[in-house]
Amino acid sequence: MITHPTTPDTALWVHAHPRPGSFNDLLFREGTRALAPRWTVTTSDLYGQGFDPVSRASDLGDLADTPGNFAEQAGTAYERGQLPAEVQAEQAKLAAAELLVLQFPLWWYGPPAILKGWFDRVLTAGFAFGEMDPDLGVPRRYGDGPLAGRRALVVVTAGEDARSIGPRGISGDLESLLFPLTHGVLWYVGIDTLDLHVVHDADALKADDVEREVARLRSRLAGVGTEEPRRYRRLRDGDYQGTRALHADLLPDRTDLGIHLAADR
Amino acid sequence: MITHPTTPDTALWVHAHPRPGSFNDLLFREGTRALAPRWTVTTSDLYGQGFDPVSRASDLGDLADTPGNFAEQAGTAYERGQLPAEVQAEQAKLAAAELLVLQFPLWWYGPPAILKGWFDRVLTAGFAFGEMDPDLGVPRRYGDGPLAGRRALVVVTAGEDARSIGPRGISGDLESLLFPLTHGVLWYVGIDTLDLHVVHDADALKADDVEREVARLRSRLAGVGTEEPRRYRRLRDGDYQGTRALHADLLPDRTDLGIHLAADR
Repeated sequence: MITHPTTPDTALWVHAHPRPGSFNDLLFREGTRALAPRWTVTTSDLYGQGFDPVSRASDLGDLADTPGNFAEQAGTAYERGQLPAEVQAEQAKLAAAELLVLQFPLWWYGPPAILKGWFDRVLTAGFAFGEMDPDLGVPRRYGDGPLAGRRALVVVTAGEDARSIGPRGISGDLESLLFPLTHGVLWYVGIDTLDLHVVHDADALKADDVEREVARLRSRLAGVGTEEPRRYRRLRDGDYQGTRALHADLLPDRTDLGIHLAADR
Repeated sequence: MITHPTTPDTALWVHAHPRPGSFNDLLFREGTRALAPRWTVTTSDLYGQGFDPVSRASDLGDLADTPGNFAEQAGTAYERGQLPAEVQAEQAKLAAAELLVLQFPLWWYGPPAILKGWFDRVLTAGFAFGEMDPDLGVPRRYGDGPLAGRRALVVVTAGEDARSIGPRGISGDLESLLFPLTHGVLWYVGIDTLDLHVVHDADALKADDVEREVARLRSRLAGVGTEEPRRYRRLRDGDYQGTRALHADLLPDRTDLGIHLAADR
């Protein structure tokens, strides 16, 4: 079974805001500082390091010009050690981390492209998913896989208020809007997510709001190592077995994305 | 009231797959060809043209180094004609189009970064949203705004099968996964969306499957100008007025994203 060993007490903070001196930049600096006494903190300041988010054929090494399935070929390039150095470096940081923090402003109801592309390029087959589960006959994923055992905190700043992106909010509730990230990316590759850390009305913060938000983040981070994650249902637990959809006898009246949360939370 | 006039019978096809010769590339070539008798087709082959999806301070012209709200400053740069030529060119193509086709492979349950960044960079304040509605006292959006009156077809290829991304599917249902795009991007700026055009199991298509999918797309495109769009609720219609969430008396038992569809469909 493929498992990437973590380095104890190591955290990776991925930051995706374009502007030094911004509120997001402040949260990044204060947040990484707040973690430092307890954690060895590595960072991926995607704008600062000029990360290229575009997954392209040149990522595939020898296979760049070979027709075939792009995602599978990325897995082969990973196994052959042919992924670009920039991608390998991000994989190494993620593999080592026990704690992953993803921090970004909500742009068009999702992560900025530079962070979306970090998932596209870094989470390749072989590295993050794809190994078969010998018992189930399907790939290890959704709570399982080479990156299982890690936890992630998503820190997101939103221009909208808590009502607009809350339950039944006009823009959709943030839990659903970020389901492709918390469940589709993180849980898919085995990473537990903590409850979202959201800053609402982030474009209208006054000086004392900023101070309060920094304090709230510091306080959240102080307990991040022991906080109980909210878990989605595990593929291994059988709730989807044979149907690939949630069994009809589980929460039969619901179609919202919350049905994928494990029942024990 | 700001409105961008369309050029009659003009379609813009935005294509976001890295590989010439791929199944997606075939759909792009066949699809644009199928539109040609009825529409004047412009294209944005994002990989082909080397589109840069990273929204950064250098997009802001004079304001690149001025502290302030990034999205607002992009609006100012738009008004001053200082956005990069690459962004202005995409805005001009989108402004002219009556029909928008967005075609992409589903990567990590959303659009590839190169397409996400097309939204981030091209749909600036001023161009796509931000004007106040004098009656409502809020910005014109969700069915209203400078780009209203257009229609969009989302063509998406997915490696997963119809059950996995169908209702209650293990990966979340595709309608919800793409809600940030269909509602959060398109409907926000006033663009009606047609029902999704989905190719399932796209990594496992045999030659006759490919032929069938090309024919199905051509057939869909033949009627795309007269197809009834599925509309989300309009901000102007008052279903969220005063609460920014769907009024408690509308579909009171539901919390899924489908509540935002207009009741008449």
